[in-house]
Amino acid sequence: MSELLKLSHLIESEITKIEFPLSPGNLYDPLNYFLSNGGKRLRPVLTLLATELGGVQKEDAINCALAIEVFHNFSLIHDDIMDAAPIRRGKVTVHEKWNSNIAILSGDVLLVKAYQLLANQKSQHIPELLTLFNKTAIEVCEGQQMDMDFETSEFVTVDEYIKMIRLKTSVLLGCALEFGFIVSNNSISNRKKIYDFGINIGIAFQIQDDLLDLYGNPDKVGKQVGGDVKSNKKTLLYLIAEKNAVGDLREKLNQVKSELDLNSKVSATQEIYETLGVKIETKSYLDRYYQQAIDLLDSIETESDKSAIMEMVNYLFNREH
Amino acid sequence: MSELLKLSHLIESEITKIEFPLSPGNLYDPLNYFLSNGGKRLRPVLTLLATELGGVQKEDAINCALAIEVFHNFSLIHDDIMDAAPIRRGKVTVHEKWNSNIAILSGDVLLVKAYQLLANQKSQHIPELLTLFNKTAIEVCEGQQMDMDFETSEFVTVDEYIKMIRLKTSVLLGCALEFGFIVSNNSISNRKKIYDFGINIGIAFQIQDDLLDLYGNPDKVGKQVGGDVKSNKKTLLYLIAEKNAVGDLREKLNQVKSELDLNSKVSATQEIYETLGVKIETKSYLDRYYQQAIDLLDSIETESDKSAIMEMVNYLFNREH
Repeated sequence: MSELLKLSHLIESEITKIEFPLSPGNLYDPLNYFLSNGGKRLRPVLTLLATELGGVQKEDAINCALAIEVFHNFSLIHDDIMDAAPIRRGKVTVHEKWNSNIAILSGDVLLVKAYQLLANQKSQHIPELLTLFNKTAIEVCEGQQMDMDFETSEFVTVDEYIKMIRLKTSVLLGCALEFGFIVSNNSISNRKKIYDFGINIGIAFQIQDDLLDLYGNPDKVGKQVGGDVKSNKKTLLYLIAEKNAVGDLREKLNQVKSELDLNSKVSATQEIYETLGVKIETKSYLDRYYQQAIDLLDSIETESDKSAIMEMVNYLFNREH
Repeated sequence: MSELLKLSHLIESEITKIEFPLSPGNLYDPLNYFLSNGGKRLRPVLTLLATELGGVQKEDAINCALAIEVFHNFSLIHDDIMDAAPIRRGKVTVHEKWNSNIAILSGDVLLVKAYQLLANQKSQHIPELLTLFNKTAIEVCEGQQMDMDFETSEFVTVDEYIKMIRLKTSVLLGCALEFGFIVSNNSISNRKKIYDFGINIGIAFQIQDDLLDLYGNPDKVGKQVGGDVKSNKKTLLYLIAEKNAVGDLREKLNQVKSELDLNSKVSATQEIYETLGVKIETKSYLDRYYQQAIDLLDSIETESDKSAIMEMVNYLFNREH
C-alpha cells in the first residue's frame, strides 16, 4: 500500500472515532451524516505528510490534521447553503436533507469542534497553531464572500480571481502543511516555504479544475464537459477570454452567454477561446504556479525523503488535460 | 461613577478598537454595523468583575472578555436568521439589512474573531481558556437547537426547559466569570463556584424574564405585556401551568391558545394561571436559583471585596416584579 493510501486510511479511521452526543438529534445527526460522507481527506493527509517530512511521527499531528478536515467540512456545509447546492459528494446536502436553520447551527458546532480538536494538540504548540488557524479561517470566509460577490460583479480581473481562489482554497492547504512543520518544530524559513508550496499547489490545482471542465476527458473527470460555460461561471478561462477579446470577438463572447442551446454554447465558446489563445494562456498560469510549488518544495532544507509528498503532487496533477 | 459603569465603558471603548478590513465590504460592513449596535455588554463586564475579585488587574483579562462579547454577538446574528427576527436592539437585523447568506458568513467570521481575541491572551492561559470556551460554545448551540425543537414539540417538561435556558443562556455567563478566575490563577474549587454562580444567576434571570413578560410593569420592562402568551411561547409559566392543569382547567388552557382577541387571551391566561398558582410556583423557582447563586458567591474564598459583583446582581434583579 502506498504511503498516501496509508495516511488516508489513518485519517478515515480517526474521523470515525469523532463522537457526537445523541441529543439534540437535529444538531448532531447532520454531522454524523456529513462527516461519514467520504471526501478525499486531502488536507489532513497533507498535514501528516508535512509532519513526517519535518522528521516526527505522524501520530503527533493527528489532532491538528483532524481539525483541518473538520473545518473544511464546516465550510462545505455553510457554503452549500449559500450556493443552494442540492448535492455534495453524491449525497443530498445538509440544508436539503434537514433545513437551512439546522445546517447553519450544525455547521457552527462543527467549526467549534475543529477548535476542540486543535486544543487536543500538545499544549506547547497550541498558541502557534491557533494563530495560523484563525488567520486561515478568516481568509477562507473572505474567499467565499469574494466568490459570491463575483457572481454579480460586472468586471472581475485575473488578479482578483487568483486572489479569490488563493483565499477560498489555497490558504487551507498552506495551513494544513504548515501545521505539520509547527508540530515538528521546523524553522520559520521552512515553515514559510511549505506554506507557500501549499498556496501555489492550491492555485495550480484550481486552475487545472477550470481547464478540465472544458478540456478534460469526461470519462476521467467524472462530470459533463463545459458545466462552467453552461452556467456562465467566471472561471480563469472566461476572465482571460474577456481580457483578450476586442471588437467582434468581444461581441461574440457576450452573445454566446445567452445562447440557449447548451451544446452549441459550449462548442461556440471553445471556438472563441481557441481564437483568443485562452487554453494556452491558462496553461501557462497553471505551469507557473505548479513550477513555483515544485521549486519551493525543493528548497526546503530537510534530511527526510520528499517522495511521499511528490507522490501526492503527482496524484493531484496526473489527470488528463 | 460606579464600578459597573466604569467597566462597561471600558468594554465599549475596547469594542470600538476592534478593526475589520475594508474589503470584502459585504463580509465586514455587517460586523461594524452589528458590533457598534450597543447591547448591555453584560458578559464581558462579568469577566472583568471576576478578574478583579480574583485579585488581578482587569486589564489582564480584556482580550478574553472581548472574546465572550464577540461570541455572544456571533450567536445573535445566527439566531436572528433562524428565528427570522426583523429587529435586534432597536435596529434591523443583519439578515434583513443584507441577506441570509451574508449573515451566515459574517457570523462565521465573528466566531473566528472571538477565537482570535482569545488567542491574544497571555499564552500560559490559552489552553485552559480554550477548553472552557469550546465546551461553552457547543453548549450554546445545543441550547439554541433545543429551543428550536421546543417550538414543534408537543410536550416539554420543566426540567427540559431549565436545561435549555442553562445551555442557551447561562453557560456563557458561567464561562465569562470563570475566565476571570482563570486569568487570576484562582483555585479549581473557586473556579467551580464562580462558574456555578453564573449558571444559577443566568437561570434566575431568564425565569425573571418570563415572569416580567406577563406580570411586569410595561413602563419599566419596556415591552408589551403578555407577548409570550400572545405567541404561545413555551415559557416556564406555561410549562408549570401545563404540569398543574387537570380536567376543565386543562381544557381551558388548551382552548385559550387559539383565542384570536389577543387582549382577552392575555387576561384569560392570567386568570387560569392564578387558579393554578403559576406565578407563585414560578417565583419559587426564581428564588431558589437566585439564593443558590448568592450562597455560591458567599462561599468563594477571597480577600477581595464582593460589593461590585453584588452591585451587578442587584442591577440584574431590581426590576419590578
